[in-house]
Amino acid sequence: MDYQAFVEEQIARIREEAGDHLAINALSGGVDSSVVTVLAHRALGEQLKTVFVDNALMREGEPQRVVGIFHDMGIPVELIDARQEFLDALRGLTDPEEKRNAITNTFYATVFGRLVRQSGATCLLHGTILTDIEESVAGIKRQHNILSQLGIDTEKAYGYKVIEPLNELRKDGVRAVGKVLGMPQVLVERIPFPGPALATRIIGEVTTERLNTVRAATDIVEEELRDSDAFQYMAVLLEDRATGIRDGRREFGQIIVVRAIHSTDAREATPVEIPWPTLHRLCQRITAIPGVNRCLYDLTPKPPATIEYI
Amino acid sequence: MDYQAFVEEQIARIREEAGDHLAINALSGGVDSSVVTVLAHRALGEQLKTVFVDNALMREGEPQRVVGIFHDMGIPVELIDARQEFLDALRGLTDPEEKRNAITNTFYATVFGRLVRQSGATCLLHGTILTDIEESVAGIKRQHNILSQLGIDTEKAYGYKVIEPLNELRKDGVRAVGKVLGMPQVLVERIPFPGPALATRIIGEVTTERLNTVRAATDIVEEELRDSDAFQYMAVLLEDRATGIRDGRREFGQIIVVRAIHSTDAREATPVEIPWPTLHRLCQRITAIPGVNRCLYDLTPKPPATIEYI
Repeated sequence: MDYQAFVEEQIARIREEAGDHLAINALSGGVDSSVVTVLAHRALGEQLKTVFVDNALMREGEPQRVVGIFHDMGIPVELIDARQEFLDALRGLTDPEEKRNAITNTFYATVFGRLVRQSGATCLLHGTILTDIEESVAGIKRQHNILSQLGIDTEKAYGYKVIEPLNELRKDGVRAVGKVLGMPQVLVERIPFPGPALATRIIGEVTTERLNTVRAATDIVEEELRDSDAFQYMAVLLEDRATGIRDGRREFGQIIVVRAIHSTDAREATPVEIPWPTLHRLCQRITAIPGVNRCLYDLTPKPPATIEYI
Repeated sequence: MDYQAFVEEQIARIREEAGDHLAINALSGGVDSSVVTVLAHRALGEQLKTVFVDNALMREGEPQRVVGIFHDMGIPVELIDARQEFLDALRGLTDPEEKRNAITNTFYATVFGRLVRQSGATCLLHGTILTDIEESVAGIKRQHNILSQLGIDTEKAYGYKVIEPLNELRKDGVRAVGKVLGMPQVLVERIPFPGPALATRIIGEVTTERLNTVRAATDIVEEELRDSDAFQYMAVLLEDRATGIRDGRREFGQIIVVRAIHSTDAREATPVEIPWPTLHRLCQRITAIPGVNRCLYDLTPKPPATIEYI
């Protein structure tokens, strides 16, 4: 595929669709929404409003880091603090589908919906990729159907336009487009990170304390595996607990799973054969997190497992 | 240590303690109770009654296999089918301590208590080892305090004697005694297996269906790791579930953890560095068990984790 031509076509298409109106998009810091942000900024300049919603589910320092990277590229991004709204919506939920719905609804119907309506934008840009669409159709994941989730009935033609410039690409294609756009490697080579962020990495209830535990484990995994050739790596906090010994006494502790996979497009994945010294160090550092006394490594390819847990 | 002398001392001691009376012991098939059974049979011959209680929590074919091995050694063992009593006692329980108590109480107070009283024995032989006592004292595990668990008040001196011939040995010492006794290698080199058996390998409720799942996984792990130099290896069924894809559709499946450790005496343990081809094969076979779509490998040494999960 000629990605240079693809970029020029998409920029022309975005200009044509937006016309003289304001367009808006939400940046998550993942490669898909990052590439859409750069493409749309090239097309529209100040006619584009980009927001970054802090949902309390981000990695350590993530919101500030992402906004800073775009600032350095000359692209203004507005940071929206919606942490309390998300934590309130998640309180008491343990069912994965209910948690996912609470995050999706809080994002689209409440926070981003409010921002879209307040902005006066008539054009939305969205980082949907082909794999998302395929998995939605197969019933594996519920993916974004953005307008209906905003409470906007497209059929009645409210005049909103949705542009999904990447919806014919897979992850490797998105990365190639990012390179053509001259984006910094830290964004293009970014390991995938799910929309519901660290909430996807917590089985059971999402609380501030449990977020802190999985955030600390995520930090360790990303530091230890940054230089590996893995497609994606993550830490998952289980709800199950197991016995252990701490300072000679019984402790009923928490369990962290480390998952690292090879993949080209997230459709299939195989576990990375991490060297044993690294596995031992991961375990040692992760079981030093308060309350965590087990560390497991996920051996499962996709299929039969998905990459994420919930 | 001179294990030959140890064996002779213990045989003499058992004869002296038992006198002319009947002695009874329960064989689980683990190395501790197996060694006690052979020692006591050498000392007492037909004056010893040995029972094997099938608690429904055993590995595939285990009760028949163990009774058969002792039969071949000329030692009669009575097989007691108490499966329904244990399953009834476990129904609806998810708390690890409650499950452990239900199994212990069903074994001691109900099943073995009944057998002891019916037998007219006045002497009980028990395979307690030094590690059990140390972990009880440290509060890590509740171990057997056999007479009080039988509902027998030792202080009022009912005349029951408890003999624990192995209570100064650790696991390696017990194995050495087994070798001196000329026991078959399949018993002496037996990997440790906990008293509550497969129930210890199930987080959450113990049901016939979940026992079948962990039993199938245990079979696979034991077959794949039999020729490894591991001290112990096991499969654990978690209560948590995770998403997967089966035949192109979303599946919310079960998770099996494989644990394999090096240890000399179970006080400390380190994870075995299983070769990757074996790990991949374990995962492939385990995720072929109906309903299971993830396989994890436990990286944690003891401490901070214990060997078992509950």
